[in-house]
Amino acid sequence: MKTLLIVSHPDLINSGSQQYFLSSLKGNDKITVHHLETQYPDGKIDVAKEQALLREHDRIIFQFPFYWYSSPPLLKQWQDVVLEAGFAYGKRGNALYGKEFGLVLMIGVAEREYQAGGTELFSINELTKPFQAMAHKTGMIYLRPLTIFQFGYLEEEQKMDLLIKYWQLLTMENDFSLATREKWLIAQLKNFIDQNSDSPNARIFIYAVDLIEENRNTIDGLQMVFDDMYD
Amino acid sequence: MKTLLIVSHPDLINSGSQQYFLSSLKGNDKITVHHLETQYPDGKIDVAKEQALLREHDRIIFQFPFYWYSSPPLLKQWQDVVLEAGFAYGKRGNALYGKEFGLVLMIGVAEREYQAGGTELFSINELTKPFQAMAHKTGMIYLRPLTIFQFGYLEEEQKMDLLIKYWQLLTMENDFSLATREKWLIAQLKNFIDQNSDSPNARIFIYAVDLIEENRNTIDGLQMVFDDMYD
Repeated sequence: MKTLLIVSHPDLINSGSQQYFLSSLKGNDKITVHHLETQYPDGKIDVAKEQALLREHDRIIFQFPFYWYSSPPLLKQWQDVVLEAGFAYGKRGNALYGKEFGLVLMIGVAEREYQAGGTELFSINELTKPFQAMAHKTGMIYLRPLTIFQFGYLEEEQKMDLLIKYWQLLTMENDFSLATREKWLIAQLKNFIDQNSDSPNARIFIYAVDLIEENRNTIDGLQMVFDDMYD
Repeated sequence: MKTLLIVSHPDLINSGSQQYFLSSLKGNDKITVHHLETQYPDGKIDVAKEQALLREHDRIIFQFPFYWYSSPPLLKQWQDVVLEAGFAYGKRGNALYGKEFGLVLMIGVAEREYQAGGTELFSINELTKPFQAMAHKTGMIYLRPLTIFQFGYLEEEQKMDLLIKYWQLLTMENDFSLATREKWLIAQLKNFIDQNSDSPNARIFIYAVDLIEENRNTIDGLQMVFDDMYD
């Protein structure tokens, strides 16, 4: 599975939260990071190039700061010119059909304000309906979004937990079963072990992989016993 | 009451629906028509000027084509730079508080598609929540929007009915009682009579005004009788 991460931010270099997440992706050849404002500083979007990029990837993610309950202007411009009839919808417009679509939102206000009685009035689920409708119209599967509230105020451990959720949204099969999450974690650990075989930590990770695989075998064995009992 | 009509459209000259509505406003000194793409072809918005415009008006209307369930990019840019903290929200940011806010949306798809089971999935009420949240955050009163579906397919009479609703959204008190609508209609007719005193039609309009005022007097009289009975 290949993921296209479309980032829109008018001042990416100076955004601590954006840099925190993006820097963790360096060297990952399954993820194409595509920052629109860097690519198109004059706002003139290369439609054919963008459509080719979309065709080459299986999962499309929009990552942006959630200003005024929507995307930055260049991402809206991108939607208006790239997702044209005949490509993204309408007769023979099925280039995105069956792909997966997700949002990564950096949000400056606390989560509790996103409800009636709060300063923001509506939930993120309500406010992102234009993106849900876009996924629906183009035949894409809408994934659970990743919402990052007030990143600057988070503890280091909370940030790392979000980083794992971020990697999962970008690379994990869209199936949050225990088995899928185990398979994903083992792949991540093996990848780390390959790249750091001379590190003493590698031994620990190998041990962790063995343990998870052993647990999985035990669970699968128990499952077989249960299945037999019901037959 | 003064109304600021902020129009955003990347190709206004060639939009029949936009021209139909805008051309009807010529010479109205209570309405400031402000087309962003004409004003700022390079996208560089004059924040101080825009904030001054907002302060000078009582009702703010956004008029735009509803592409991908949201505004054109320049209007989003306008929101991001003009509606800054300290002006539109936050500490001492109450410049818009108590003003009225409305949307005029030109929509290319039929109204029946804006529901579950339709191609657009959600209603216009659901899809415009980002604008409702903006009005809430800035302390503006959100008016009933004017939604114009598939303008090109409408009959001439349907277009004229929409034109009246358009003028009402731009100029009528936010109170759709019979009395308010009568008062508004009389003002429109008198305005026409003043500008066309030598036209034979003016006599008809004067007669219409007299009749509406007479009806109003009858209704007010009946209301007084009812009020007495309940006392």
